[in-house]
Amino acid sequence: MNDTRAPAANFAARVDACRARIERVLDEVLALPDPGTERLRAAMRYSTLGAGKRLRPILVYLTGESFGAPLDALDAPAAAVELIHVYSLVHDDLPAMDDDDLRRGRPTCHRAFDEGTAVLVGDALQALAFTVLAHQPMAGASAEARLGMIRVLSRAIGTGGMAGGQAMDLEAVGRTLPVAAIENMHRRKTGALIQGSVLLGALAAGVSDPRQLAALGQFGAEIGLAFQIQDDILDVEGDATLLGKTTGADAAHAKPTYPSTAGLDASRARARQLRDAAIAALEPCGSRVGALAELARFVVSRES
Amino acid sequence: MNDTRAPAANFAARVDACRARIERVLDEVLALPDPGTERLRAAMRYSTLGAGKRLRPILVYLTGESFGAPLDALDAPAAAVELIHVYSLVHDDLPAMDDDDLRRGRPTCHRAFDEGTAVLVGDALQALAFTVLAHQPMAGASAEARLGMIRVLSRAIGTGGMAGGQAMDLEAVGRTLPVAAIENMHRRKTGALIQGSVLLGALAAGVSDPRQLAALGQFGAEIGLAFQIQDDILDVEGDATLLGKTTGADAAHAKPTYPSTAGLDASRARARQLRDAAIAALEPCGSRVGALAELARFVVSRES
Repeated sequence: MNDTRAPAANFAARVDACRARIERVLDEVLALPDPGTERLRAAMRYSTLGAGKRLRPILVYLTGESFGAPLDALDAPAAAVELIHVYSLVHDDLPAMDDDDLRRGRPTCHRAFDEGTAVLVGDALQALAFTVLAHQPMAGASAEARLGMIRVLSRAIGTGGMAGGQAMDLEAVGRTLPVAAIENMHRRKTGALIQGSVLLGALAAGVSDPRQLAALGQFGAEIGLAFQIQDDILDVEGDATLLGKTTGADAAHAKPTYPSTAGLDASRARARQLRDAAIAALEPCGSRVGALAELARFVVSRES
Repeated sequence: MNDTRAPAANFAARVDACRARIERVLDEVLALPDPGTERLRAAMRYSTLGAGKRLRPILVYLTGESFGAPLDALDAPAAAVELIHVYSLVHDDLPAMDDDDLRRGRPTCHRAFDEGTAVLVGDALQALAFTVLAHQPMAGASAEARLGMIRVLSRAIGTGGMAGGQAMDLEAVGRTLPVAAIENMHRRKTGALIQGSVLLGALAAGVSDPRQLAALGQFGAEIGLAFQIQDDILDVEGDATLLGKTTGADAAHAKPTYPSTAGLDASRARARQLRDAAIAALEPCGSRVGALAELARFVVSRES
C-alpha cells in the first residue's frame, strides 16, 4: 500500500476505496436514534450522504495509512472532518451567506428543507463531529490522542481558521483585495480544515515527531490553498454538470477570487507552485508518503 | 462555603461572585488575536459579554465547589457551557428561527451586526467551547477528565439534546402539543445543557461515583425543565424591563408552551414539583450540595 511507485490506477483505486469506506462510516454515524427529530436527522443525512469529493476524509485515510494506522483507527477522524465540512457548506449556502440553490448536484439543504432546519443541521453536524472524536471506537486511541485531535480540529474551525475565513469572505463581497489578502482568506476558510485533516490522520497514527508533524502541517496548508485556487478556476471555466454546482457563482456574488484578481494563467501557475511546495514539504516524512504526493498532483489537475 | 444552613444573603453573594468571575473568564477567552476577523470577534463579544443570567456557569461553579474543586479548575467548563448557550441564543434569534429583535436588553446579534455574521458567531462560539475544554489550563485535569467533559457537552447539544430540541420547537410552531410532548421538547432544548453544566462541574471536581453522577444528572434534568417552565411563565406575565427581552413572544410566534397548554396555575405547580424532585434527587450527594438545593429554589422563584 505504501509503494511510492504505485501507478496512477492503483492510486485511483485507493481513493475510490476511501470514498466507499467513508460513505459507510458516515451512514452509520448518522443513524441517530433520537426520536422526535426526524426532519432534522433526514436533513443531516440528505446534506451529508451520497455525494461529495470526500477530499478531507481521503486525506485522513491516506495520511494515517502512510504512517501505519489501521483503517478502523481512522474512521472517526475521517468522519469528523467531513461532518465539519458539510456543516460549513450548509451554512455557507444559506440566504444570509452565499444564497446558493444547488450543491453537489442537488437542491441545497435550505431549499430542500427550510432555512431554520438548515441552521440546525449545521449546528448539529458540528456537535456530532466532536461526539464522534470523543466517543466513537477508535483502535488503540488513548484519551491523550483523542484530545489532541479535538484540539487540532476545534482550532482549525474557529476564528483563527474556517469561521474566521468565512467572516473575511463575507466582508470581501463587492471589494477588491490584493492577492495576498485573498490567499490569507483561503488559507483560513478552506486551508485550515484541509491541514487539520492531514494532522488528524497523523495523530491517529501516533505520529509524534515534531519535524514530521510540522512537515505534514505545511503540506496540508499548501494543498489547501492549491485546492481552493483550483476550485475558483473551475468556477470560471468548469462544467456545471461535472461540478454539481452553479458555475460563475463567485462572479455573480461579486466575490474577489484568485482568478478574478490575478487572472487565469497566473492562477494555474500559482496552483502548480503550491503543489510543488506541498510535495517538497513532505521530505522529512520519507518515501512512505508517496500517496500524499499523488494526491497533491490530483488536487491541481482535477476537473471537478 | 459548603454550609447547608448558609443564609440566603450568603447564597446570593456566592452567586454574584460566580457571575463576576465568569464575566472575567469570558472576557479573557474572547480576547482572540486572529487578525482580519475584527467584525466577527466584536460580534462574539457583543453577544456574550455584559449581560445574561449566567445560570449554566453558576451551576458548574456551585457543583464543582460542592465537591471540593478549586475555582480555577472550573473556569474552562463554566466558560464552555456559557459559550454554547450564547451560540444557541444567537442562532435561535435569527429571522429563520424566532426572528427576535431584543435579547438581554439589547438588539439581537443579527440586528446589531448582520445575519451572515450572526450565523458565523454561533458557529465560532460552538467551536470555541470545545477549544476551551481541550486547551484551556485547568488545574489538575487529566486528558481523561477533559475528554469526559467533551463527551458530555457534545452529546448534550446534538440531536439528542439542544439541537434536537430546537428542531422540535421549529416543528411545533402553530401546532397543539400534549403537555408530555412539550416537556420532552423542553428537556432537550433547555434541560440537556443545564444538566450538562451540572455534570461538567462534577467531572471537573473528579466525581466518579456513578450513584452521585446519576443523582446530579437527575437534579440537572429536573431544574432544567423547571427553569424553562418558569421562563415561559415569565414570558406571559413578566416585566419586559426586568427580563431584557420582549414578553409575549411565545404567543406571538404561535409556540405551544407549558402555560399556553396547561394554564398558569398548573405551570406554577409543575415548576414547584420539579424543584422538589430536583432537591430530592440530590440525596446521594449528602449535605455538601446545599448550594444546589438553594439554586433550585431560586430557579422557580425568580422574576427575571
